[in-house]
Amino acid sequence: MFKLDGKIEFSDKNNDILTVGELLIDMISEDYAENFESTAYHKFFGGSPSNIAMNVKNLGINSIVASAVGEDGLGDFLINHLQKAGIDTNCVQRVDYSTSIVVVTKSKSTPIPIFYRGADYRIAYTSKLEEALLQSKIIHFSCWPISMLPVRHTIEKVIEAANKNNILVCFDPNYHPMIWKKGENGVEYVKSIISKVDIIKPSEDDAERLFGKDTPENQLEKFLKLGAKLVIMTLGKDGAIVSNGEEIIRFHTLATEIVDTTGAGDAFWSGFYTAVVKGYSIREALNLGFAVSAYKLKYTGAVVDLPKLEAIQEMYGY
Amino acid sequence: MFKLDGKIEFSDKNNDILTVGELLIDMISEDYAENFESTAYHKFFGGSPSNIAMNVKNLGINSIVASAVGEDGLGDFLINHLQKAGIDTNCVQRVDYSTSIVVVTKSKSTPIPIFYRGADYRIAYTSKLEEALLQSKIIHFSCWPISMLPVRHTIEKVIEAANKNNILVCFDPNYHPMIWKKGENGVEYVKSIISKVDIIKPSEDDAERLFGKDTPENQLEKFLKLGAKLVIMTLGKDGAIVSNGEEIIRFHTLATEIVDTTGAGDAFWSGFYTAVVKGYSIREALNLGFAVSAYKLKYTGAVVDLPKLEAIQEMYGY
Repeated sequence: MFKLDGKIEFSDKNNDILTVGELLIDMISEDYAENFESTAYHKFFGGSPSNIAMNVKNLGINSIVASAVGEDGLGDFLINHLQKAGIDTNCVQRVDYSTSIVVVTKSKSTPIPIFYRGADYRIAYTSKLEEALLQSKIIHFSCWPISMLPVRHTIEKVIEAANKNNILVCFDPNYHPMIWKKGENGVEYVKSIISKVDIIKPSEDDAERLFGKDTPENQLEKFLKLGAKLVIMTLGKDGAIVSNGEEIIRFHTLATEIVDTTGAGDAFWSGFYTAVVKGYSIREALNLGFAVSAYKLKYTGAVVDLPKLEAIQEMYGY
Repeated sequence: MFKLDGKIEFSDKNNDILTVGELLIDMISEDYAENFESTAYHKFFGGSPSNIAMNVKNLGINSIVASAVGEDGLGDFLINHLQKAGIDTNCVQRVDYSTSIVVVTKSKSTPIPIFYRGADYRIAYTSKLEEALLQSKIIHFSCWPISMLPVRHTIEKVIEAANKNNILVCFDPNYHPMIWKKGENGVEYVKSIISKVDIIKPSEDDAERLFGKDTPENQLEKFLKLGAKLVIMTLGKDGAIVSNGEEIIRFHTLATEIVDTTGAGDAFWSGFYTAVVKGYSIREALNLGFAVSAYKLKYTGAVVDLPKLEAIQEMYGY
């Protein structure tokens, strides 16, 4: 049970967060095109685990990224980008598959990404990864690395080792059938993983994809029943509701100006993680997470140049 | 045995050529970049079977393309492009895998393409494909569709049916380990396919990848020994040597101005096919193939706006 006004106690470790998952190239069209006639695309650094790593570095804590990229130029580009941002890339594995890319043709209706997954789901459970894990306070992953084999087995081993070693396990249940292993319905598997983790942050859409339509309160209840110890359910412009199974708290959005929603969820995680590592209570950490997310929403890009957590705390009055 | 001054006799069929193989997107960087720092890429229509189809249409004969693309926007784009060029797309299959793409970052040294193969190697041997095959005079394929399963089995069935039905089988043995199924050495398989086809057009590099370094004459001999009935070996600026197992002929290059070599090999095939279908002798068809290739070399792009074969014949004096 997480007490909302309590702190999360961590043992003394060299590293704060280990994020495990996709590192990839986003190829995004320059223009809007309804029929993929658009000819120019731009290549961007992508992957939520690395975005969180870069965010928490700015906010004031440490991280290690565990991912897999190809033995190719795009893999070099991704590793260089992380290194320039000062991120430890010792756990970025090079594998004999093409660096994963996602092609997005912008559309006035819903842009449908096309996935080209090669290297990203080949992260192996190596002794280097285990070492990084054992020296970390928190591990974080999303549905990407559990959506495919063999990396799913790596995540299973990571969770097992984390649970044995009193490491906080946080999971973003951003389930979407588009990224899931062909021929397998991921819903049951995602639910089985929720029982093994500590903290999850579903959006309303994630909840609907897992359980069907229902009220936020009922969805919260379903996540708790599956075994999650703290559920942070985001509701877009309506803020968020959070429960530890004992108490529900509601958060209004702190966003005053919304320029770009890309990366807002990762910004929340980053603020929340930084705060719990720095010794804030869970309630304070939630507020700081939402403050970092609101700050990010004012700027374009998945990763923006965040100030220190204390500066954000001052800005938003927490 | 193909007599060099003889014609190839075809039965009366509705369609001239059926090309089977990859249909894909080339994503090519705008700038040269040695470390994949290049950010802008342009999307191009790609795939040699379709390039040949578009060429022969301009030169004056018919074709059908058998390929597979994804149920996605890039697949729509490729099919629309073919249809706009007046190509029959009835044998372009839609499959539940992403449309294949190749990312090329231009480089002053050798650009290394990164392959993302999804849909392209899922061409099934359907009744529609068999029907198209049986109504064609020639079938053409390259190493792309034999490099992976399951399409390799489709090609094996295509060859078997073509051999039974007196359809000319032409193969581009453009072997490269980069596109080959992981963990398999493709050399032996490519050699085994050569024994089952009529005409092949290796380049010197193809020969070296299959047999190691040797003189063009010795390489020709090796291809003939494997069972190819006509071997057209291109030697870049040194023209080509051709053998039917009885006689060797040498061709000097007809190229006077080289602007872009992309698609020059497919332009040769296109001119050669158009000529044999139109009833020219093999010797004449070889000359016309090299003339079409020389014409293409003067312009940028894999597919250029070719005139009718007769116009090219006049230009080059054959």
